[in-house]
Amino acid sequence: MKKKLDGINVLYPTPTVLVGAMVDGKPNFITIAHIGIVNHAKPYLISLSMGKPHYTNPGIKENKAFSVNIPSENLVVETDYAGLVSGKKTDKSDLFEIFYGELENAPMIKECPLNMECRLYDTYDTPTHDLFIGEIVETYADESVLTEGKVDLAKLKPLLFDMSSVKYWSVGEAIAGCWNIGKKLKQEKKV
Amino acid sequence: MKKKLDGINVLYPTPTVLVGAMVDGKPNFITIAHIGIVNHAKPYLISLSMGKPHYTNPGIKENKAFSVNIPSENLVVETDYAGLVSGKKTDKSDLFEIFYGELENAPMIKECPLNMECRLYDTYDTPTHDLFIGEIVETYADESVLTEGKVDLAKLKPLLFDMSSVKYWSVGEAIAGCWNIGKKLKQEKKV
Repeated sequence: MKKKLDGINVLYPTPTVLVGAMVDGKPNFITIAHIGIVNHAKPYLISLSMGKPHYTNPGIKENKAFSVNIPSENLVVETDYAGLVSGKKTDKSDLFEIFYGELENAPMIKECPLNMECRLYDTYDTPTHDLFIGEIVETYADESVLTEGKVDLAKLKPLLFDMSSVKYWSVGEAIAGCWNIGKKLKQEKKV
Repeated sequence: MKKKLDGINVLYPTPTVLVGAMVDGKPNFITIAHIGIVNHAKPYLISLSMGKPHYTNPGIKENKAFSVNIPSENLVVETDYAGLVSGKKTDKSDLFEIFYGELENAPMIKECPLNMECRLYDTYDTPTHDLFIGEIVETYADESVLTEGKVDLAKLKPLLFDMSSVKYWSVGEAIAGCWNIGKKLKQEKKV
């Protein structure tokens, strides 16, 4: 028997990221987990859903650039803090060590082992949120989270956001190969 | 020292879902992990990025409805199979037990402990993908994955998709409270 949950969103967990942007000429960081993957081909597009009152939104619109920085578990306190405190009242520009890539207005976080610098591709408007769609210009990784040149989640230890429990969760174990474990059913069904 | 990864998307892991839709008058299911959260307020909007050649896309456009079904680890073989085999060649309508909610054309999967039936709110067009934006009409849950009426990831055991390793991963442990663990830094900084 299914129970109705009043139309809530249960599409979790999602990776928690720190979004970097220039606001009023100064780097600012905000914690976001309502992310999306929009286009898996050139141009590679990802999305961030950000409530319209956020301090960061006008900065992204003005400079047409932002960064997406993926923190590991060891940054859980700083990551949560960046979501608790608004740039309107508090300068968060010194919370992390900053570096830049190709874009002038996409400050990135050195302490985060993965960083994507994004050009603002489009803004999809909803009644309450700006959905910022970014085109990935370049991606940066610490060698410490790579295995044979590829991101290794077991090394990355991202913070997975869950709205139901209002908690960050860790990644567990690899279970099975994608486009692979289902092959046995394909054979059984003789498809 | 950061290593450049040629602008690839590293925004993983994401929850793997089975998308249900009516295509040519028959239920069909496809596995998708390039999901997104678009609007966290009424109307609650979520997105699915689906390559244009997929069999399912015209069905969603025609009927303006789809379902998002979240499988647990025990369905890994069936879930992967639904992503390996196209509805163009293979009838997947008998892969799962189907139920319907308020919408006529959003077939849902009984074996999945969480289901969202969605009305097509909009389609955001990219060069290679249709980004289907769905408004959640109703959400259904098995009691077995709830704790005090809320979804419990430890019970749900979703399949987390990772493009880097091309593997499904499990959820690990709860680490800390959101909008909470960062409070200690707020106190230290006297913000």
